[in-house]
Amino acid sequence: MSLTLATIRAAHTRIHPHIRRTPVLTSEALDAAWSGSLFFKCENLQHVGAFKARGATNAVFSLTAAEAARGVCTHSSGNHAAALARAAKLRGIPAVIVMPSNTPQIKVRNVERFGPRILFCEPTQQAREAACERIVAETGATLIHPFTDYRVMAGQGTAAIELLEDVAAPGLDLVLCPVGGGGLLCGTAVAVKSLTPTARVVACEPAGAADAAAAFRTGRIEPLAQVATIADGLRTTIGEENFALIRTHVDDIVTVSEASIVAAMRRLWETLRVVVEPSGAVPFAAIQEGKVDVRGKRVGLILSGGNVDLDTLPWLNK
Amino acid sequence: MSLTLATIRAAHTRIHPHIRRTPVLTSEALDAAWSGSLFFKCENLQHVGAFKARGATNAVFSLTAAEAARGVCTHSSGNHAAALARAAKLRGIPAVIVMPSNTPQIKVRNVERFGPRILFCEPTQQAREAACERIVAETGATLIHPFTDYRVMAGQGTAAIELLEDVAAPGLDLVLCPVGGGGLLCGTAVAVKSLTPTARVVACEPAGAADAAAAFRTGRIEPLAQVATIADGLRTTIGEENFALIRTHVDDIVTVSEASIVAAMRRLWETLRVVVEPSGAVPFAAIQEGKVDVRGKRVGLILSGGNVDLDTLPWLNK
Repeated sequence: MSLTLATIRAAHTRIHPHIRRTPVLTSEALDAAWSGSLFFKCENLQHVGAFKARGATNAVFSLTAAEAARGVCTHSSGNHAAALARAAKLRGIPAVIVMPSNTPQIKVRNVERFGPRILFCEPTQQAREAACERIVAETGATLIHPFTDYRVMAGQGTAAIELLEDVAAPGLDLVLCPVGGGGLLCGTAVAVKSLTPTARVVACEPAGAADAAAAFRTGRIEPLAQVATIADGLRTTIGEENFALIRTHVDDIVTVSEASIVAAMRRLWETLRVVVEPSGAVPFAAIQEGKVDVRGKRVGLILSGGNVDLDTLPWLNK
Repeated sequence: MSLTLATIRAAHTRIHPHIRRTPVLTSEALDAAWSGSLFFKCENLQHVGAFKARGATNAVFSLTAAEAARGVCTHSSGNHAAALARAAKLRGIPAVIVMPSNTPQIKVRNVERFGPRILFCEPTQQAREAACERIVAETGATLIHPFTDYRVMAGQGTAAIELLEDVAAPGLDLVLCPVGGGGLLCGTAVAVKSLTPTARVVACEPAGAADAAAAFRTGRIEPLAQVATIADGLRTTIGEENFALIRTHVDDIVTVSEASIVAAMRRLWETLRVVVEPSGAVPFAAIQEGKVDVRGKRVGLILSGGNVDLDTLPWLNK
């Protein structure tokens, strides 16, 4: 199995009844400020507040009846967990979610409401994977990995399909997408390059978790000894499967500072009047920081999510 | 001149190229919590961050060429001012905005960007009206009143037209709308009652500025000696023209507490992931406070605006 325009289109047909066709917002003020045309695909307004609803739903509804009956499991600290729990509930099958014990309460509640079994584990990658393996061995559940799974990548790519459909002719010159594990980026890049081969796809990453940018330069995945970024959705190391696709379909990866992420987030709340989480603000941060030149260009940005603790806004924590 | 479905439809045709068709958002979590179906018409995502773009644009583009050449003026502390300045800029005519000297900086900047002439005056109704009268006398500008003007009311009603079009069959049982001066409420009520006569229209007002609710009970407008509400868009006394239409087309007016407005605002940011200003949260506050029963009903709510100072969020000011 792999990731192609055909698998993304099939995913779109499969998940269509269960996801939102999110709006594409524009801003006269931002367009004037940057002398470009910016199109924001609002996956922060997606079910569970993130594009993750797309990939998880595609994975769950791709299972055979026999596989589905045994349930699904995953390890995730947040949006993918909520998305998988919701998809399992929609299909009426069991879900087990393995979460690090230090997961913020708001993210735990966001998963709990869909009624999965939640297992807390030590906050290390090893502990998370071991707990998942035990569940799979005990129950026969299917592990739905948050980003290396091709069904998940295909689902994430459906946001770009909608973006390209909803932007009027002459389409886009450039698409900016955040990169963490690479699921959204792979789906986005394959969709964009298949439908609009002339458009550039540039991934945007926090400088404090820039493993994808490093891999893109050196040609091999190099997990970071430590990551430090407010963009909690982008702390993961990119997957092997994802990196192979990224090398083929992505034109560049740029990095942004923490201050720039916070400033971008605040500016988007103020001008677009939507709640964007730090990870979702990273592509716009790349524009604000001058890492990407958008003058005279038509630019799509994926606002990947909107799950934020409203009691601790980063521009007020000084 | 008056306000009818025909004038609202004509307004929609007239302003269509200049306004956004804002999305209608839903939330599985809110629907489950209240056992109803809630449809949020997101005028917070409208140009200038408020429905006011609709009415002001209709008024400006309704002027004859001779009238337009002499320009427009208004007194407003915020969203109507920005909307009128934007509409005048779109038509290429002069605009003079009279603002109270205590207008928050964020609202002043929101107007300034459209380049009108801004006149500051004492923060009283009398000073604002006197300043406007001088401008009209000196320049021959047309005064565009923020809510008593029938062209403005017709423009505001176009949001309800879109809401009714975008909600699938069997349509809505109830529409909740904030009331300040009454421009949005009149446009909404006439549109809803004309297109869906079975739907109830209920206006929602802060208890701290409940002149419309009082007038609705006593049958005559009674300006309040003082108002106290965080919902700054709803502090105005309803207009005579508005009250006449409200008595005919509105089924009820309910009031909500200040705590309820803040809680509703926060809940909407968290679940819909959009930025809603206090005035825009008032209809949802009426549901949260139990002033309106939505069980088993299909309910439209107008989220009227999203202009908020992000440095002083009311749930953090304790």
